[in-house]
Amino acid sequence: MADSPTTSRILRVGRANSDLRPVTLERGAVPYAEGSCVVSFGRTRVLCAASVESGVPGWKKGSGEGWVTAEYAMLPRATRTRVSRERSQVGGRTQEIQRLIGRSVRAMLDGFAFGEFTVKVDCDVLQADGGTRTAAITGACVAVEDAFAWMVATGRLPVSPVRRRVAAISVGIIDGEPRLDLDYEEDVRAGVDMNVVMSSEGRFVEVQGTGENGTFAREELNALLDLAVHGIGTLDGMQQQVLAQPLPMPV
Amino acid sequence: MADSPTTSRILRVGRANSDLRPVTLERGAVPYAEGSCVVSFGRTRVLCAASVESGVPGWKKGSGEGWVTAEYAMLPRATRTRVSRERSQVGGRTQEIQRLIGRSVRAMLDGFAFGEFTVKVDCDVLQADGGTRTAAITGACVAVEDAFAWMVATGRLPVSPVRRRVAAISVGIIDGEPRLDLDYEEDVRAGVDMNVVMSSEGRFVEVQGTGENGTFAREELNALLDLAVHGIGTLDGMQQQVLAQPLPMPV
Amino acid sequence: MADSPTTSRILRVGRANSDLRPVTLERGAVPYAEGSCVVSFGRTRVLCAASVESGVPGWKKGSGEGWVTAEYAMLPRATRTRVSRERSQVGGRTQEIQRLIGRSVRAMLDGFAFGEFTVKVDCDVLQADGGTRTAAITGACVAVEDAFAWMVATGRLPVSPVRRRVAAISVGIIDGEPRLDLDYEEDVRAGVDMNVVMSSEGRFVEVQGTGENGTFAREELNALLDLAVHGIGTLDGMQQQVLAQPLPMPV
Amino acid sequence: MADSPTTSRILRVGRANSDLRPVTLERGAVPYAEGSCVVSFGRTRVLCAASVESGVPGWKKGSGEGWVTAEYAMLPRATRTRVSRERSQVGGRTQEIQRLIGRSVRAMLDGFAFGEFTVKVDCDVLQADGGTRTAAITGACVAVEDAFAWMVATGRLPVSPVRRRVAAISVGIIDGEPRLDLDYEEDVRAGVDMNVVMSSEGRFVEVQGTGENGTFAREELNALLDLAVHGIGTLDGMQQQVLAQPLPMPV
Amino acid sequence: MADSPTTSRILRVGRANSDLRPVTLERGAVPYAEGSCVVSFGRTRVLCAASVESGVPGWKKGSGEGWVTAEYAMLPRATRTRVSRERSQVGGRTQEIQRLIGRSVRAMLDGFAFGEFTVKVDCDVLQADGGTRTAAITGACVAVEDAFAWMVATGRLPVSPVRRRVAAISVGIIDGEPRLDLDYEEDVRAGVDMNVVMSSEGRFVEVQGTGENGTFAREELNALLDLAVHGIGTLDGMQQQVLAQPLPMPV
Amino acid sequence: MADSPTTSRILRVGRANSDLRPVTLERGAVPYAEGSCVVSFGRTRVLCAASVESGVPGWKKGSGEGWVTAEYAMLPRATRTRVSRERSQVGGRTQEIQRLIGRSVRAMLDGFAFGEFTVKVDCDVLQADGGTRTAAITGACVAVEDAFAWMVATGRLPVSPVRRRVAAISVGIIDGEPRLDLDYEEDVRAGVDMNVVMSSEGRFVEVQGTGENGTFAREELNALLDLAVHGIGTLDGMQQQVLAQPLPMPV
Repeated sequence: MADSPTTSRILRVGRANSDLRPVTLERGAVPYAEGSCVVSFGRTRVLCAASVESGVPGWKKGSGEGWVTAEYAMLPRATRTRVSRERSQVGGRTQEIQRLIGRSVRAMLDGFAFGEFTVKVDCDVLQADGGTRTAAITGACVAVEDAFAWMVATGRLPVSPVRRRVAAISVGIIDGEPRLDLDYEEDVRAGVDMNVVMSSEGRFVEVQGTGENGTFAREELNALLDLAVHGIGTLDGMQQQVLAQPLPMPV
Repeated sequence: MADSPTTSRILRVGRANSDLRPVTLERGAVPYAEGSCVVSFGRTRVLCAASVESGVPGWKKGSGEGWVTAEYAMLPRATRTRVSRERSQVGGRTQEIQRLIGRSVRAMLDGFAFGEFTVKVDCDVLQADGGTRTAAITGACVAVEDAFAWMVATGRLPVSPVRRRVAAISVGIIDGEPRLDLDYEEDVRAGVDMNVVMSSEGRFVEVQGTGENGTFAREELNALLDLAVHGIGTLDGMQQQVLAQPLPMPV
Repeated sequence: MADSPTTSRILRVGRANSDLRPVTLERGAVPYAEGSCVVSFGRTRVLCAASVESGVPGWKKGSGEGWVTAEYAMLPRATRTRVSRERSQVGGRTQEIQRLIGRSVRAMLDGFAFGEFTVKVDCDVLQADGGTRTAAITGACVAVEDAFAWMVATGRLPVSPVRRRVAAISVGIIDGEPRLDLDYEEDVRAGVDMNVVMSSEGRFVEVQGTGENGTFAREELNALLDLAVHGIGTLDGMQQQVLAQPLPMPV
Repeated sequence: MADSPTTSRILRVGRANSDLRPVTLERGAVPYAEGSCVVSFGRTRVLCAASVESGVPGWKKGSGEGWVTAEYAMLPRATRTRVSRERSQVGGRTQEIQRLIGRSVRAMLDGFAFGEFTVKVDCDVLQADGGTRTAAITGACVAVEDAFAWMVATGRLPVSPVRRRVAAISVGIIDGEPRLDLDYEEDVRAGVDMNVVMSSEGRFVEVQGTGENGTFAREELNALLDLAVHGIGTLDGMQQQVLAQPLPMPV
Repeated sequence: MADSPTTSRILRVGRANSDLRPVTLERGAVPYAEGSCVVSFGRTRVLCAASVESGVPGWKKGSGEGWVTAEYAMLPRATRTRVSRERSQVGGRTQEIQRLIGRSVRAMLDGFAFGEFTVKVDCDVLQADGGTRTAAITGACVAVEDAFAWMVATGRLPVSPVRRRVAAISVGIIDGEPRLDLDYEEDVRAGVDMNVVMSSEGRFVEVQGTGENGTFAREELNALLDLAVHGIGTLDGMQQQVLAQPLPMPV
Repeated sequence: MADSPTTSRILRVGRANSDLRPVTLERGAVPYAEGSCVVSFGRTRVLCAASVESGVPGWKKGSGEGWVTAEYAMLPRATRTRVSRERSQVGGRTQEIQRLIGRSVRAMLDGFAFGEFTVKVDCDVLQADGGTRTAAITGACVAVEDAFAWMVATGRLPVSPVRRRVAAISVGIIDGEPRLDLDYEEDVRAGVDMNVVMSSEGRFVEVQGTGENGTFAREELNALLDLAVHGIGTLDGMQQQVLAQPLPMPV
């Protein structure tokens, strides 16, 4: 029930169209989890906890292969006005996002030949100011990489199946200008909105562009992709740095 | 419980990588609906029925504006092996698809200032052989255009709010080759899979590219977009033709 | 949102009280299904697809016996005004109808000693103008007979367990006159409404008479049964004819 | 987990095929309800409580008319082996039965012009030994008649809209012999099973005959109806007697 | 829809603050159940039926141990105004009560080393006038003791694992006075309300005191506990007496 | 999937039986919420966010009164092994806890005459090591007090209706010794376990003692209450201190 922001709030104070918001990655932030990371993109803040569980979903049983999957949720007061919990049916937006995160972290591997284990990464949004799905993917990558490293460190696997990192960012067009890493107010104003997931090898994992309030031309698509490539490069460097530190072990 | 197809089945017999499958649009196929179209892309066949209802969802009540939305489902035996009905919870895939169809048909308008009516387009897959969501969007466009035309013809609206058509196609990379309009077996084999929705003005409405079994480079993305632009051009021509016939009226 | 029909619409133009509406049976209409039939009774049109699945419901496991069952649903715009999908709870009417169809097709057999297979027949109403449950039973019979014939043709069974056909029709009393095969408007006006299912041996499988808007005397019951026996005789002849053609095989 | 009954148990000891089981009607048995009756048919025992509530279902709002409806349930240990409560979805059998009871008690009236009140009759099976739905209808009739009498006695209605009583009985064919009022073991053994509801005017309200384990001929149908007419005559006399006593008032 | 009681109704006529309402325990009242008891505390009346089932919940499978659990529900018209059935989700109050009953009857045993059986006690409220959960516990104890005795009598167990009885009563403070065994109207008026469960050894099993309409001091807590100890002593004597009779066997 | 702790872990190192674990209260920790507090009791950590919403639940509409209520949930990896989200039905334990929190924070007021607003406090467990419900109540008190203060500060209320604080602690008996503030391992080992909620006036709000693994005597109850009174005194002092600081305003 916060009072509505004054319309004079100036967007992107001191931030160029091609700048990310301040990004932090707190690796190992969930002491009980096999891998974890609290990620922030500006005021957006997501807790990512990867759990290693014996067994796989029914359709994989007996295959000798593992699985990697994700769940996504928001705390009710992660947002400016309270949003109800999804306690009787999981909404379409939530399902869409958690399927996207799942596909993205599965792209870190080239197959699931690591035995019948499931790595499930829970992405819980503590604070939401736009870009929760891209922040979640970026943090989930760190959590998943560490969960597999924990399996190696504890003798469950001889070697980690992780082959690459993934990171993600949103881009959009506002008043005709392409911008990187939209916050909530920018997201609402954007006519075109795209989420891009890329690997540490510089290839695309997902490209999801939507023009509900306006269609977009091929050149605009290209300009948005340029911005995204730039932003994801920065995120990938941060992941690389934080993962170069020694592995935090769960308590 | 069909016997599994022989592995020697040769893909795309007599169809170039840039060819669509045979496409048909049966406008007015649902006699009770205000607008309708049964669309086929090869063996994929989707019944699209647009209904005009008084009233709008709760969050639009009192706004004086209308709404356009979509539902998607498959008949249980639309597929080679039976798939259960979604009778207790709507699955993530279904929600993702019906949200995509909804956004696509809303892009036909530049706003909802046509009074508190809801146009709901039901896309029920009669037969599924890949590309059900793109066929659904292409058929839904015809149904929605006719539902608004019916509102004009019956005096409910002075003029139709429809500003453009939309159509959609899938593209993917199989064994390194970009291909247009994948059928089910191609879809399963594709490393990269993209759904593209465009307007009759030649602009993008949605671009959704996914590389779960393999990432993709910028050039591959470009090649896929080229193919999609080409295929959607053909679909748009067919929509234009069929819509040039006199409006079928519901019984 | 169709305009309401004018009250001057004359019921049963050119159809005697003891006439069926035009009936068609399109055998093999669902290419992927092991048995199928699209049936129409006038403007009522139902797609019946029988699927053969390995395994049986939990309470039959290990019995060595099979099972035959049915599901029923309507496309949302099968009706003059749109009806919501049953996506969170299956309604009472739907359950009643699909239980009736299941009992009716099970009466085609004298037991389930054909191994642990389930034949499930999906009856999806494409268009509804009264009599959907009786049309569904009549079409489901053809689909189920063919599903068992497919099991014989593909070597899964040595001989079909089907012993008889079943067919069904509605009868009712309108303005004191017994009538056969009510359409939607007649159904609404009928004081007494009965659904009758009979075997090809001329015996009753189900008799369900309801007098919510008026009770009925024994003589009226008898007159209705006479009409039903007459109508079902015709339907049975049509089933016999269509089933005498060679078995269509699923693609 | 009761031990299974010895197979030597002789059916219908001291009861002719045309005899009812001992029947009791305890009118006013639920002190808080506006009308109530605990009915037993042998060991089957059903508590029927009619509640008068202001208001009607949504589709009747503003019509000035009332509604009469029913709910049916079994206590988990009404049966020889415990049956789970229906706490997440109401099963098909339950829905079928409560819809039948609802239609039956609505046949006591010739319309709903008694103002926007709902009379809801809850039929809870305390003990189940076959015939629960027919006992429920017979008891519900008494409860509903008293609920309307209470509305008259308390000045809510000038006169009761009840025009007739209804009662119901089951009949079936066992080893070729038609029998009245089947208990649970007879019901399991019956090849044909029919439930008949009649009014106190001697007319039919519902006739539901099912031959899942065997079809039935027209003469058998007639013999079963003869038995039902006879049994319902007796039940109607008992209802008449018990309703001739002064109206019990709720505490 | 009973008329609201006159405000002049005088509470607790002829009953001292430390008096129980008239209590009855009808042991063996549910003929099919392995153990049962219909208990009344004044006008509150609860049917308790204990069922013995083979098998245990998933988390106990393979442990060689059994389990004892409870379900609780109210008939819709157990109350002065009708309460809806819990048919889609079990409410918080119901879950809280059935968990309390389960813990209470489990306290009758010192472990579950009686093999993989489940004793489930269903507590269905026939009439509700306050204190339904305490009456349910008191009756459930009798039903559970008899269910284990039946297992011994039928050779399923060599000896009963029951070590003690449990009984329960409510106490509360009304207008500053501690009172025993509140009826519905007292319960509504009480500022503090406590439910106490004790064993036949005079020790506490559960103490649940709530002061939603007013907090309470340590001395008040003590006075309430004194009253509860006194009332439970009486209930325990009644259980002892009724259980001293020969074991009723299910039909 | 953490390795199981070694059995040699010594409980309560350096903590007397009457000591609390280290407690922290981070007031204003959720920037968007009208009132908030992240509370820790040792490794247990709960985020409490109070939201002010216009309107009240249906049963309060038109009363002119407000309402205060609570929801409780755990992040899936708040625990040593992952616990599934409650996405289709809210479990009994969760409902019990959130009802307890709701009653506790309502005891801060003497009525709801502050207009038709709802204050809803969400208690989300970030990390769980025993005592989550008592930590949640202690933190929720701070959040609720601030939510009302925010209503005063922003002119929505002339004066806060808060009359007192509430705080809560768990106590239990382990190996015969009463202990204050049990962590998870102590909780598992405790034969008796009690949660006590008290007001800042030193009176009881809730007393919930349970002896599932062993009953308890009156003296033991008294010893546990003594410990709880002591511990809650300390918590109340901390609340008082942190609330003496200036009110943090939501962003």
